[in-house]
Amino acid sequence: MEALQWQNGTLLLLDQTQLPGQVTYITCRDPESVAAAIKRLQVRGAPLIGAAAAFGLVLGAKQLAQQGLAPSAARLREIAAVLLATRPTAVNLRWAVERMLATVDHSATSAAEEIVKALEAEALAIAREDAQQNRRIGTFGASLIKPGWAVLTHCNAGALATVAFGTALGVIRTAWHQGRLRRVFADETRPLLQGARLTAWELDREGIPVTLITDNMAGWVMRQKLVQAVVVGADRIAANGDTANKIGTYSLALLARAHGLPFYVAAPRSTFDITLASGVDIPIEERRSEEVTHLAGIRVAPPGVAVYNPAFDVTPAELITAIITECGVLQPPYRQSIAKLYQESDKDGGIDPRQRACSRGT
Amino acid sequence: MEALQWQNGTLLLLDQTQLPGQVTYITCRDPESVAAAIKRLQVRGAPLIGAAAAFGLVLGAKQLAQQGLAPSAARLREIAAVLLATRPTAVNLRWAVERMLATVDHSATSAAEEIVKALEAEALAIAREDAQQNRRIGTFGASLIKPGWAVLTHCNAGALATVAFGTALGVIRTAWHQGRLRRVFADETRPLLQGARLTAWELDREGIPVTLITDNMAGWVMRQKLVQAVVVGADRIAANGDTANKIGTYSLALLARAHGLPFYVAAPRSTFDITLASGVDIPIEERRSEEVTHLAGIRVAPPGVAVYNPAFDVTPAELITAIITECGVLQPPYRQSIAKLYQESDKDGGIDPRQRACSRGT
Repeated sequence: MEALQWQNGTLLLLDQTQLPGQVTYITCRDPESVAAAIKRLQVRGAPLIGAAAAFGLVLGAKQLAQQGLAPSAARLREIAAVLLATRPTAVNLRWAVERMLATVDHSATSAAEEIVKALEAEALAIAREDAQQNRRIGTFGASLIKPGWAVLTHCNAGALATVAFGTALGVIRTAWHQGRLRRVFADETRPLLQGARLTAWELDREGIPVTLITDNMAGWVMRQKLVQAVVVGADRIAANGDTANKIGTYSLALLARAHGLPFYVAAPRSTFDITLASGVDIPIEERRSEEVTHLAGIRVAPPGVAVYNPAFDVTPAELITAIITECGVLQPPYRQSIAKLYQESDKDGGIDPRQRACSRGT
Repeated sequence: MEALQWQNGTLLLLDQTQLPGQVTYITCRDPESVAAAIKRLQVRGAPLIGAAAAFGLVLGAKQLAQQGLAPSAARLREIAAVLLATRPTAVNLRWAVERMLATVDHSATSAAEEIVKALEAEALAIAREDAQQNRRIGTFGASLIKPGWAVLTHCNAGALATVAFGTALGVIRTAWHQGRLRRVFADETRPLLQGARLTAWELDREGIPVTLITDNMAGWVMRQKLVQAVVVGADRIAANGDTANKIGTYSLALLARAHGLPFYVAAPRSTFDITLASGVDIPIEERRSEEVTHLAGIRVAPPGVAVYNPAFDVTPAELITAIITECGVLQPPYRQSIAKLYQESDKDGGIDPRQRACSRGT
């Protein structure tokens, strides 16, 4: 089950709002349909929306070329703006778009066909690298899971949130295949139930034992020692390690701390945003109240009731035991360990350090 | 809106599973229909199911009398067993049933009609006292709410969970009418959404400002200082103050502690169970998995997925700032302050101390 497929110049996106009931793909031939799918959460998960937006720019460049217009950096920036406006919190979207635009900026040619080819190659590279990085995250992370542990996860940071394999679920998959993991407890993750609809489905299909709980059961599950660690993904990590992730993550981190359980964040380097000194500056998307007041189209709250519906929260770095990246496991103090991920950037002539191979020292 | 009405020898129960969409009453003419309504959560809330069960016994006694059978203690105990088997956690149910049976045991007469009359009088007394006690809980609790505070509540410990006025919402109502309270944040309370369906509805109808959130937002709401205290009800309080309440309460208590916020439990004396030394022995009801896997009849999780669905959890006494009763505010150490609630029981010739007037010293 691939969440994203690039077939003969067309982008196919698995419509995740229909899972687990139906497996249907949305066919995208222009960047607007990609933006719409991101906005509606038909495609979601920080790394996956980055990859989807990259292909959105390829589709935009192709359209320009077909109209006889050069896919210039200026024209592509207009398309990029539409894609960037979809969701504010996950930084992988911006990272992927900027990486795509850099391809055009650095391109020696201005022939439309060549630019489209270069963009397509870059989008495919982003997708391929994401899948590879997740395997590495899985391997690094699995080493943190002690044999016989059960872990709790939140939302979906799995194959459905990435191009393949997943970040938090990449760790869980690898630990399971290494025979270390006993069971996964999955928070259902209100309001949109990514844990029930996606994580439980993804793990169940693969035969990994999973127990579904409502979000408010997490503390009680910890109290009864049913889990030994928490593993989650991330939407944006600031330079000091503060981590934005799906709403509820912050509560989980506090509950893990109260029970003495390790709290692990799994994310590729594209999720880091070192332009932000701390999590205070991470924009938190607020979504419409109907996500909370309605379930499956049925109203469950009185009409007109006030609702607060932040889609994300920020977990302070001091609550995070370690951050698992494709370059290794970052330990506190994160300001130093994250800086190290970036420190050799100048050597490569200004190339974004998040694209470089991991340095051996990390 | 009364959750329970006794009209001409018939019990009318507001069907809370239909709220907020429809206001419909279930007509109960026998104890079996009362037991069924409790089991289906059509009537819920610890004090309310106690009162409903009391009237269930009146209906049972009436049936026996109509059949020409004496409503003896032995026969009533059989009916009581059916009522007691409905839900294991809330102790008010057992308390009310035992109080009703004690009426028969102490009755001087064995005339069927007289016994029915005595039982009816006792059930009406339980209902009347519950409403009065909640007013007192409201007054005592409101004094803990500092002017301008917003508070977070969980599940529904309101007029719909009691005969009238509510316990936690009794505190909230009184604080609001005293002009102290700024706003209420209501956890939706998965799986059965009592917060969204009942608390938001109850407060909204009364013009008390309420903001609905999903359960996993509570920590983030505290982090942003949107609430200054947590007030919840209780289903059973052990002799040391450990408190069983709706699942998610324990997590909230830990989150409140982490943010330095007071965590208040509001409950009448009938919710205390001093036969239990601590919360470890409180039976926790587990309910069927469909409550988690389905929403409004629609499946939201993969078929066959494992589910853990405890309906309650236990908050250790050390996380509770104070327990608000109709006799005053209990402070830690609770073993002593709870014992004091009971200490004069011998003076009243063995009458359950939870029925006595509050002693002045409390």
